[in-house]
Order: sequence, then structure tokens, then C-alpha cells
Amino acid sequence: MELTKVRIHSARLQTSIEQLAVFGRNEKGGLDRTTFTPAELAAREWLKQQLQELPLDVKIDQAANIWAKRSGTEKTLPVIAFGSHIDTVPNGGKYDGALGVLTALEIMRVLEEENIQTRHPLELVSFTAEEPNPFGLSTFGSRALTKKLTRKDLEGVKDPEGRLLTEALKSAGGDAEHFEKAVRTPEEFSAFLEVHIEQGKRLLNRHIPVGIVTAITGIYREEVMVVGEANHAGTTLMEDRKDALTAASEIILALETVCRQHRANEVVGTVGKITVRPNAANIIPEEVTFTLEIRGKMREEIQEVISAWQERVKEIKNLRCVQVERRVLLDQAPAPMDGQVIQVMQKQAGILGYPSHLLGSMAGHDAAHMTSITRSGMLFVPSIGGKSHCPDEESRIEDIEKAANVLLHTILELDQQLDS
Amino acid sequence: MELTKVRIHSARLQTSIEQLAVFGRNEKGGLDRTTFTPAELAAREWLKQQLQELPLDVKIDQAANIWAKRSGTEKTLPVIAFGSHIDTVPNGGKYDGALGVLTALEIMRVLEEENIQTRHPLELVSFTAEEPNPFGLSTFGSRALTKKLTRKDLEGVKDPEGRLLTEALKSAGGDAEHFEKAVRTPEEFSAFLEVHIEQGKRLLNRHIPVGIVTAITGIYREEVMVVGEANHAGTTLMEDRKDALTAASEIILALETVCRQHRANEVVGTVGKITVRPNAANIIPEEVTFTLEIRGKMREEIQEVISAWQERVKEIKNLRCVQVERRVLLDQAPAPMDGQVIQVMQKQAGILGYPSHLLGSMAGHDAAHMTSITRSGMLFVPSIGGKSHCPDEESRIEDIEKAANVLLHTILELDQQLDS
Repeated sequence: MELTKVRIHSARLQTSIEQLAVFGRNEKGGLDRTTFTPAELAAREWLKQQLQELPLDVKIDQAANIWAKRSGTEKTLPVIAFGSHIDTVPNGGKYDGALGVLTALEIMRVLEEENIQTRHPLELVSFTAEEPNPFGLSTFGSRALTKKLTRKDLEGVKDPEGRLLTEALKSAGGDAEHFEKAVRTPEEFSAFLEVHIEQGKRLLNRHIPVGIVTAITGIYREEVMVVGEANHAGTTLMEDRKDALTAASEIILALETVCRQHRANEVVGTVGKITVRPNAANIIPEEVTFTLEIRGKMREEIQEVISAWQERVKEIKNLRCVQVERRVLLDQAPAPMDGQVIQVMQKQAGILGYPSHLLGSMAGHDAAHMTSITRSGMLFVPSIGGKSHCPDEESRIEDIEKAANVLLHTILELDQQLDS
Repeated sequence: MELTKVRIHSARLQTSIEQLAVFGRNEKGGLDRTTFTPAELAAREWLKQQLQELPLDVKIDQAANIWAKRSGTEKTLPVIAFGSHIDTVPNGGKYDGALGVLTALEIMRVLEEENIQTRHPLELVSFTAEEPNPFGLSTFGSRALTKKLTRKDLEGVKDPEGRLLTEALKSAGGDAEHFEKAVRTPEEFSAFLEVHIEQGKRLLNRHIPVGIVTAITGIYREEVMVVGEANHAGTTLMEDRKDALTAASEIILALETVCRQHRANEVVGTVGKITVRPNAANIIPEEVTFTLEIRGKMREEIQEVISAWQERVKEIKNLRCVQVERRVLLDQAPAPMDGQVIQVMQKQAGILGYPSHLLGSMAGHDAAHMTSITRSGMLFVPSIGGKSHCPDEESRIEDIEKAANVLLHTILELDQQLDS
């Protein structure tokens, strides 16, 4: 068959999705497949079995990432890798990262069936523990690979039940003792590509099936502590109060206003977590602590929001005579996707006749870490109702099929274009 | 001595304050004398001993209230009672209610010393458990007396350590089995008078030593639940959010604004307690529950605040597409003090040459319950820095002395004026 005519088999891909969705399914129809749980370990076994049925070299690295390698015709060329993750949040959905791994599996099957040889070796990867998990370490596998997570970070880490991370890792085939062997270098890769659901409504609202990611959001988090004065809620007149909660309320609303007013509509700010002391009905709050999160595709945008917000904080603080203490918890830079990869994806979507749209990823992904060692690119599949991380999460098979075909032809074109 | 020349002895009163302050003193200089603790039981013993040294008829009722009766010359007249409470909040101060009991003790001493006979019998009272306590029942003694708390309310009540209230009550000389015998009727009383610290700065700011209470605040409490939509803090654009916390922030600020704008500056509104679900840094809050409290001297004032606030809530709710569910937790009417008692207090302060000021009590007191069975009146002593319920709580002995003298002469004049 002419190479440009090759397509993935959507019925087979759909079957894989359903087969994998068996592992961890709960009575609400959601998936409980948090990393290193029996359900997730079973899902790993199923995946390995599928891979081993193909002529692929399947191996598990020290971070328990699953790799399946297909040789290339030119021995000196580095790997074009693609995949995502199969772990879920508690009561999550069956698409999310699973889509990226199963799309990769489908592509390996098609290449084999059609007897297509690539110049570069290809590697399917299923990363360990991308999602938040009871061990508190998300994007575990991709961070291990890119040396952002080291053996030292694992020491003594336990889940709330007291299970050691090192033990749990071993149960999935990993090896904490030789963890540094999971690290891979820029020289080993030519590119990394990931398919994932959008987790938002932008593609859906625009009726566009293929999302091409321009950058993965930067995430900035602060812990903000507002300190006022605890006092009797009855005997303290309104004008004598230093109420930490009304001050915090203004500060929280200021963040919302600043984000809404920012020219980039993909800059978002959230206060999701808050604690009040002493937290009694008849005592004016003395201390309010909350976490603030700002996400944006560009560092400057995040910085602009912080600046505008802290101007407002200064005013509020002075007017209300409260103290505000701030502590940065996280300052993860936005990760731009590779320009060449984006172009190839756009071109291939065009050839395939699929409308595509460039957009930022407002959630973190393994691809964000992969940018530190190789050209990276991501394709998003629309999520019905914008829902994700819940049993109702759903993507249409027609859209999944399109993303898989774009991925396939992006791999094939990059294989031609890239000589390193 | 001419009756109008009689004065209390401030040095002796000061000594009593210091003696009682020994019980429950902690290393921070505060008092841990919560009801029915060993420290509080010891304080009760000390008080009984002081009372028994006078020719008073000391008895403990079924609610463990301590009474000390001095006979009057006219057997048919009901009692003029006065006192307060000696329990404290955790890490409280030595003034608060103790001042009311010790002032009463000082007055009994002076009457005895000066050999003054009254027409009405007089009773000193030290009420049980006025403060919030681990059994969750404040103004325990005055509510028992006025039939607002009955034997049924005590059944099964335990503190967090599992100690039964009925057992704790017994240790203080009370008797849950015959609890209804603590009830006293309107026919038994002529008046009830209470001295207490102000717990605020109004007297202090005006440099006025004697506060005469016009009414004890009404307390209105609601639990408000704001329901929005939980969503990913990254992938949900600002315009697609139904953030329960920003909505709640606006609602909380609306209460503050409405109270600040109300013509009565003694109307106060507070949100002291708040819970957010799911309370995670990267999830838009779905549900915020908080308690709202409004206090005012008049029911209409409280009602005006509620009305103005709920208008704003309606707007916020509609604009933000969130749901707001409200549940009334408490609607305690303001308790006006008796007009005749207020007049006598004003007159006597004038005769004594003390500036006095009429003011509302924004905190609850035993006197609020006593209004349901008898004429009641309260005198407030200025609190330095407006501080109360803390180790720093302090009232000047000169001010305490003035309140005690006003109380003494109010008793003596009411004794003349009242024939029932």
C-alpha cells in the first residue's frame, strides 16, 4: 500500500480502549487505577502482553516505565518515541493518557501489518505514575527519565497506608537501587510524541477534531497567609476589626479579576485550598492560609498576573491593616512544543483532510518533561462536555481515529525529515 | 454611717480578684478554668468558703449554681439577686464574669460590716458554665434556672474525653436527676443585676468608667452552602468556571459591606468558620460551607442586615451561576434590660459622680436569660485594649470599684422602690 494511504484501524483501537478499561473499573463506571495498585499492575500485564505479541523488544526500566522498541533501518539514528500513561486518578476515565498508549500500540500494529520500515528506531512508552498518586509524586516516569527525579527523592516515601514507594515500584518491575539507570540522554532521542485528551472544551466548542499543542502550561503556586486579629465576633465593632477572612476574600477575588482581565484567555488563576484559624462561628478569623495557582503558556503572562495581583494585595493589606506572607511552592516554566513537530502535525492533518487547531495545554503532561531532552509534540482529542478525570470522561472514536492517523503520519514524515 | 456614704472596699475586692485568679492559672498567665475541671471545682470551694464566713445561707442548686442568701426585713418580698459566673474559656482572663461574682461578694461583706438591713432578701449567685465548654452547653446555670435547659437536654451529653455531663455536674454538687428543682419562678425574684467586663473598646475609647447595658445582643446564625462546579484548575478557562470559593468570597464581603453601611454601628456580621470541598490546590472549589453570624441590639436591625445581604446574595448567585443553600442555626432575640433598673443605675452613677454611658452588650450573658423571669440590669467595666477571653484581659481597679459602688447603691435604691 502507498505509504500516504495507510490508516489505523479504528475498530481495533476501540477494542483496545474497552479491553484496557476493564482494569480498575468501579461500580460508578469510573476507573480506580492509581499507580501500583493491583488494578494498575494488571493493566501493565495486559499491555505487555499486547506488545509482546508484536515483534517488539519489550522492556521495563528502573522507573517501571514500559518500553517497546521497533528497529529502524539506520542503526545510527536516535529513537522516535511516542506514548503516554495508563494510570488514572481515583474514579477517573478510560481515555486520558490511555489513549496515548493505545494509539501508539495501534500504530505499532499497523506498521507491522503493512510491513513499513522506518529509518529511525521507534519506541512506544507507557510512563509510570503520571497522575497525582498516594506517594505524592506525579509524572514519575518522565521525570525519572529526564533526571528530574532521583533515587534520593524516593527515600522513605510512603503512601498513607505506610507502603514504601521503593517496594511498590519493585512490584511493577522497577528498581529504586539502580534508579539512575532509567535516565536517558538527548542523544538517544530524535523526538517524542504524545496523544492525550484535551481536558477542556476548546476543541469541542470550535467543532475541531484535532488539537495541536503549542506549549504545555507553566504552573506557579504560592502559599499565601493572611494574618489579622482574632477577636470576639459580637463585641468587636466593624471598624475595629482586622478580619483575615474578609481580607483573604478580597485577595482571592483580586486574582480572579486580574486573570479575567488579562489579554490571554488561557491564563487562569485559582484558589482551591483554604484553611481558617481558629475557624469558629463566633470568633473573627485571625489567620487564613490558601494556595494560589496561576497557569499560562508563557512565563511573561504568568508574571504579569502575579505583578498585577500583588499590587492589589498591597492595597488590600494596607487598607485592612493585615499582614500577608507569601511563599512560592512551585514555579514550573511553560514547556513549548517543538516548532518543526508542530508544522509536520499541521501539514499531516491538512493532507488527511482534518481541521486542526493550535492550542496550549493547560494541564501538565509527560511531554513537558520530555522537552528537556528532545523535540516534543502533542495531539489533543476533544473531550465531550470538556470532562476529564471522571467516569463521564469521553472522546468520540472518530476523533480518536483522526488523532491516531495524524500521529502515524507525523512519525512517518519526521522519520524522513530528521537526521538526528 | 449614712447609707449614701457607704462604699465598697477596693483593696479587699482587689485581693479577692487575685485570690480567685490562682485557680487554673497556666504558664502563659491565662486561666484554664473551664467548667467542671479540677481548677474550676477548686475555685467553687474557695468561693463557698468566702460566702460561708459571712452570715449567709449558702446552697448549691441542682444545676450546681452557687447561691448565698441574706434575709430581708419584709418576709413577703421577693429576692434581689446579683452575680455572674466564675468559669473561664480556655486560656481566659481573671476578670470577665469573676468580676460580677466578686463584686457581689464584696457587697455582701460591706452590707454585713455596715450592718445594713434591706427590705428584700438578697441573693448572690455564681452561675454554672456560662462560657462555651467541652459539653457544648453555655449559660448552663441561667438556662436551667429559667427552664430553658431541662433534664432531657443533659441526657447522654459527654465531653470529647467521654466524661458524662451528668457525672461532671454531680462533682460540682449538682443533680441531673432532679434537675427541674433548679427552676425558679418570676414570683421569687424582684430583680437580677450583673457586673461584667465590657469585652470591647467603647467605654475605653470614650474614657467612661461605667457602662449601663440597654440590651443584650440578639444572635442570628446561618449555615450557608455555596455550590459551584469542581473542575480542573488548569484546563477550565476563567469564563467557564463556577467557582464556589470566589462566589463565597463575594458573599462574605457583601455581609461586611452591609454591616458597615448599617446606620447602627453596633450591628456586626462575621463569617468565622468555613469549609471548602474538595480543597485541593489544582481543583476549582465545588462547595463552600460557612457560618454567618449577625448580632444587634434590636431584632429589626438584624432583620435589615439579613434583607440587604440576601439581596446581594441573589445577584451574586445569578451572576455566577452557583447555588446558595441557607439554613438558620440560631435566632436568639435581643434581650432588653429593664427600664427602671437602667434609670436607677444612671441616677446612682450620677450621685456617685461617675460618668456613665448606655450601651448594648454585643456578647451573650446570664442576664439575657434572667430577663425571662425578672427585671434585669447589667453594668459594664471598661476592658483595657478591649481585650477579653485572653491572658491580657484587664480592667482597672478604679473602674471596678466604681461599678461595684453603682451596683451597691442600685441594690439599695431598688430595695426601696420595688414592692414586688
